Amino acid sequence: MPSSIVELRSDTFTTPTAAMTAAMVAAPLGDDVYGEDPTVRALEERSADLLGKQDGCLVPSGTMANLAAVMTHAPRGTSIFAGRESDIYAYEAHGMSVVGGLAMEPIETDEHGRLREDSLLAALPEDHGDPQFAIPAVVSLENTANRAGGVPLTVAEVADVARFARRHGMRFHLDGARIFNAAVALGVDPAVLVASADSVQFCLSKGLAAPIGSVVVGSAEFINGVRRIRKMLGGGMRQAGVVAAAGLVALDTMIDRLAEDHANAATLAAGLAILPGVEVEPVRLRTNMVRFRLTGSLTHAEFIEATGRQGVRLAELGHGVLRAVTHNDVDATDIARALSVMGSVLRESVPVLV
Amino acid sequence: MPSSIVELRSDTFTTPTAAMTAAMVAAPLGDDVYGEDPTVRALEERSADLLGKQDGCLVPSGTMANLAAVMTHAPRGTSIFAGRESDIYAYEAHGMSVVGGLAMEPIETDEHGRLREDSLLAALPEDHGDPQFAIPAVVSLENTANRAGGVPLTVAEVADVARFARRHGMRFHLDGARIFNAAVALGVDPAVLVASADSVQFCLSKGLAAPIGSVVVGSAEFINGVRRIRKMLGGGMRQAGVVAAAGLVALDTMIDRLAEDHANAATLAAGLAILPGVEVEPVRLRTNMVRFRLTGSLTHAEFIEATGRQGVRLAELGHGVLRAVTHNDVDATDIARALSVMGSVLRESVPVLV
Amino acid sequence: MPSSIVELRSDTFTTPTAAMTAAMVAAPLGDDVYGEDPTVRALEERSADLLGKQDGCLVPSGTMANLAAVMTHAPRGTSIFAGRESDIYAYEAHGMSVVGGLAMEPIETDEHGRLREDSLLAALPEDHGDPQFAIPAVVSLENTANRAGGVPLTVAEVADVARFARRHGMRFHLDGARIFNAAVALGVDPAVLVASADSVQFCLSKGLAAPIGSVVVGSAEFINGVRRIRKMLGGGMRQAGVVAAAGLVALDTMIDRLAEDHANAATLAAGLAILPGVEVEPVRLRTNMVRFRLTGSLTHAEFIEATGRQGVRLAELGHGVLRAVTHNDVDATDIARALSVMGSVLRESVPVLV
Amino acid sequence: MPSSIVELRSDTFTTPTAAMTAAMVAAPLGDDVYGEDPTVRALEERSADLLGKQDGCLVPSGTMANLAAVMTHAPRGTSIFAGRESDIYAYEAHGMSVVGGLAMEPIETDEHGRLREDSLLAALPEDHGDPQFAIPAVVSLENTANRAGGVPLTVAEVADVARFARRHGMRFHLDGARIFNAAVALGVDPAVLVASADSVQFCLSKGLAAPIGSVVVGSAEFINGVRRIRKMLGGGMRQAGVVAAAGLVALDTMIDRLAEDHANAATLAAGLAILPGVEVEPVRLRTNMVRFRLTGSLTHAEFIEATGRQGVRLAELGHGVLRAVTHNDVDATDIARALSVMGSVLRESVPVLV
Repeated sequence: MPSSIVELRSDTFTTPTAAMTAAMVAAPLGDDVYGEDPTVRALEERSADLLGKQDGCLVPSGTMANLAAVMTHAPRGTSIFAGRESDIYAYEAHGMSVVGGLAMEPIETDEHGRLREDSLLAALPEDHGDPQFAIPAVVSLENTANRAGGVPLTVAEVADVARFARRHGMRFHLDGARIFNAAVALGVDPAVLVASADSVQFCLSKGLAAPIGSVVVGSAEFINGVRRIRKMLGGGMRQAGVVAAAGLVALDTMIDRLAEDHANAATLAAGLAILPGVEVEPVRLRTNMVRFRLTGSLTHAEFIEATGRQGVRLAELGHGVLRAVTHNDVDATDIARALSVMGSVLRESVPVLV
Repeated sequence: MPSSIVELRSDTFTTPTAAMTAAMVAAPLGDDVYGEDPTVRALEERSADLLGKQDGCLVPSGTMANLAAVMTHAPRGTSIFAGRESDIYAYEAHGMSVVGGLAMEPIETDEHGRLREDSLLAALPEDHGDPQFAIPAVVSLENTANRAGGVPLTVAEVADVARFARRHGMRFHLDGARIFNAAVALGVDPAVLVASADSVQFCLSKGLAAPIGSVVVGSAEFINGVRRIRKMLGGGMRQAGVVAAAGLVALDTMIDRLAEDHANAATLAAGLAILPGVEVEPVRLRTNMVRFRLTGSLTHAEFIEATGRQGVRLAELGHGVLRAVTHNDVDATDIARALSVMGSVLRESVPVLV
Repeated sequence: MPSSIVELRSDTFTTPTAAMTAAMVAAPLGDDVYGEDPTVRALEERSADLLGKQDGCLVPSGTMANLAAVMTHAPRGTSIFAGRESDIYAYEAHGMSVVGGLAMEPIETDEHGRLREDSLLAALPEDHGDPQFAIPAVVSLENTANRAGGVPLTVAEVADVARFARRHGMRFHLDGARIFNAAVALGVDPAVLVASADSVQFCLSKGLAAPIGSVVVGSAEFINGVRRIRKMLGGGMRQAGVVAAAGLVALDTMIDRLAEDHANAATLAAGLAILPGVEVEPVRLRTNMVRFRLTGSLTHAEFIEATGRQGVRLAELGHGVLRAVTHNDVDATDIARALSVMGSVLRESVPVLV
Repeated sequence: MPSSIVELRSDTFTTPTAAMTAAMVAAPLGDDVYGEDPTVRALEERSADLLGKQDGCLVPSGTMANLAAVMTHAPRGTSIFAGRESDIYAYEAHGMSVVGGLAMEPIETDEHGRLREDSLLAALPEDHGDPQFAIPAVVSLENTANRAGGVPLTVAEVADVARFARRHGMRFHLDGARIFNAAVALGVDPAVLVASADSVQFCLSKGLAAPIGSVVVGSAEFINGVRRIRKMLGGGMRQAGVVAAAGLVALDTMIDRLAEDHANAATLAAGLAILPGVEVEPVRLRTNMVRFRLTGSLTHAEFIEATGRQGVRLAELGHGVLRAVTHNDVDATDIARALSVMGSVLRESVPVLV
């Protein structure tokens, strides 16, 4: 049994830092359902500031952040364009249709996770006035795109989607679960990166390492709408300041640090590339994810099982791809150990010729 | 102005026959919301018989037929697989998501309108137990497939989908808006053609030429569920026997007659194929639709406008394709006239070289 | 077995007149889903004219009329105030909540079917800004109120509700399933009676004796919204002109005639009142309904069974009340026969003292 | 300005104890969306044990607990019976209708918060088979009933509702936001008190003083369903162990302590009763709430404002009633101070006669 675990399945496994737990203990609290938790308000205002929007709203998860944001933008019966490979379409139980009464139009994405223009255009109704068709209300873009390997989309690429949305009378929502990974990798102010979006959500609980929570930001009126939906869905939390306190520390201390995760991921990718029987998916710009596949006889399930027994945890994505994600609980030593374990598993699996 | 119109936009334009209007006048009536309209019951029973199912339910439209059938099969929050080019996905305002709380998974179709197996498989959740994914509840197949040019899918092709559905614990709904066109073209008993489906809906108001209505058929328990949903959606009609009377005449007199529509469509296709600057889409087996495109300088809108001025009405489908549909109000003379008008419009549009 | 039936259960049992069936046969038709049925347009315009609104929309039932109207007024998540005894609350399967995503607030009504002001006020949220509460969007009033015995509410009483709605930023929908009964009984122009309402629906299939259909009227923009919802619910019908033709005859010939139904109901009420063991519910002004209860040993079910065996059909409402409704298929002779049958049934049930 | 606050508006204002924050810092964590947070599992199992059910599920709020539980029990289109004065009906934005597609039937309650039998019976449909009526699926009971002044309902009273539910084929959900207040006041094992319920939710964040969270308990299969709905609504939290750790301490240390809150409330009620111009609402058995009204010239708003200026915070309920709630942050000294402040405010408001 390994003395410790190298957790590479996802950055959602990050545990709070000592500074975070200290802040959670010390935070001034109130009942946030009454709007009286000062730590929550501080987090919401700081989030809005950081992303250049008017106001923010803390919710328990990225799923609720996306759901509440989109429901606020989109009246019953309208449609939402989101990447077929986006988390909104793939991993959120289609809540927008089920509880929001919205039509989902999956948009094909390219290798960088960009919404393909032909697919966007094909999703537009032939005739807005014809009641056979749902009226398009929202385009959602994920940045970085999880299932495309975490490629950060640039200011110009984000603005392209904004332009499409505006031209067709739609709102533009940015699922920025990992928006700070994108901003850091691109070396751009996060507020500039999301300037063209009507709303943004980001997760405190992924690379930023806080235990719980996401924040939606946008105009003050929009955030009022989000608060209504949040209450109805059951996302109103009482002394939510304990969560927000960790979130504030995350914003203060964990954003710049994401560069380390990106460096570790680059090291991991380089190390994997020279292992026998491994194909690493190239990306335009590395953030904290490495996607790769095995070309030898070992199945992915066997590989995951074997490395897992030695303390290195990996995940399989849907399309026959293995994924490793770096984060605050994985340092350079862990990367070296992971490479060593993966290398030995792979070498052992090669039939020895006598 | 033309003395009369050749209406080729859709078979939904059919007007009732004299026998139908006579039946509408003479039908014994009752309040069908109380289940007391004998003509409605006769239609429902005859429909069930014809398609080999236990019971049937008359509804005002094909849209409601599909919606009520799918909502009956699928609990809130489950997902529906339907062709991306199917009417259910393309033309029914996504009511299944909006009012039914269901996730829609668009499945890619091939040139015959068959659901592609790779796309079906990709739509299955990686893990049924994982609440990130909606549980798949229904596969819907359209036969004939409107947007694929009306190709009739065979008993074996229909059964393939049934097998997929069963293997994955899903119900199989057949959107048979034009199921009798398929049965007639294939020379197969309609009951055999739909035997593998859990539910079928067909339209009285398309090729069968009745003015209003669709019928859903399936098990008695399923039809009870459909009746509940129908009432809630507002599809319960009082003396619906006036509609059902025409429907009974349609079932008695209009099914075999569809062969004429198919012959007329074949004549039209052959005639179009030899016109200059026309490309006719080939189909495996012709029913009552002809899809074609112009290769010359005339735009489709200009062409439609020009033939329309001479009394020949055509429609454009979404993907740069023109469509002509034959039906009970179009006879061989009309086809000849349509070809003549289309020919002269095309010839006039050719620049004359001096 | 009786040679014929006196159907007093409801005016929904009316069968079309000869003039209606003649009109159904002769009506010019088109595909109303394309907006091309001239008879439907004529009905919609005439309905709007008659009720002093901009436009109208034909739907298959009163349930869909109410549902589509209210969904058009009320965004997802808002609330609807409707009488607890109103058809909308009691008999329409709560479609507004189930498919419309709306909160229903049942309002207590008084003996005339008026919404009680204390109950209206109690249904208002303490604080509109507090997301604990749904925002009120629509007040619905039923006139005549079915379950209150068909009392026609006056222009002033209707306007009171309009004033409440306006004061609280709500829309005012009038469920006028039997609005022409109210107008005729009050001797007031229907357009004046509904002038204060944002939308009205009326049924062609009740006292007006057409076989199928209801019409929603309101502003042009509102009716556009209703058309969208109608399509999504599956209420778009093809050659709906066959239904509309009967509806036009109904508007032309059956409105003034409602006075006969009211006279017949008055005769019936007077005749019942002098029967032994019958208590007739008094009403302020009689339209076409008589509510009564038995005070003797006979149960309502036994009484209904016994009169039914002699061809007189009665219904029981929910609260231990029997109901008789007059309509175009019931004339003065039928009333006399009904009274005679009911009298004999009651007398036979009295234990004879020797 | 007062040196400190006596917060009597609600027990939702409780702040975590030192033991709770210590536990939050020390708790072993994992990603609960992957089901790997051991502290969450410990809380869920302990909750299930305590209430004698098979399994439990942590959610962010009581609103989500009720919503997810009821949606799991009730298929789309069915109806829910809940007290008109219950939190589910009054304070949860009607999410069950809006996102759950369920009909809400408000049931009248008596002075103890019991569902009135006549009202329960009246809410049953006349005929289950008639599609005009939603099928009843769930009865919900609140214990203690917040708006009835916190009266604890006894084992027998709870079982009465269970019997009604069972007799009519419905599931029985217990909104036990304050179920431990009830159990302590009644001196009964909580598991016995809820034994007749199919599901129970309780709040960690009210009298139990944890900062965030509620737990739903029920059968293992039911809890699986709750987990699905929770994910869809966005209630899946990552390192939810930080919340659960406080919850475990709450269950270990705060249940028996509720007796102090009840004693403090009794003292407060007794003290208020002898103040001039105060009417205290009597209750059958006091838990942690005191409802009272002023009979003098001071309005409730003025009174709340005046006591608030001296650090004693009170709330007004909807029906012209003031409310004071005791909890872990209010001790006997605070009660004395509150009484003194309220007394002086009342005495100052009396016009002095010279």
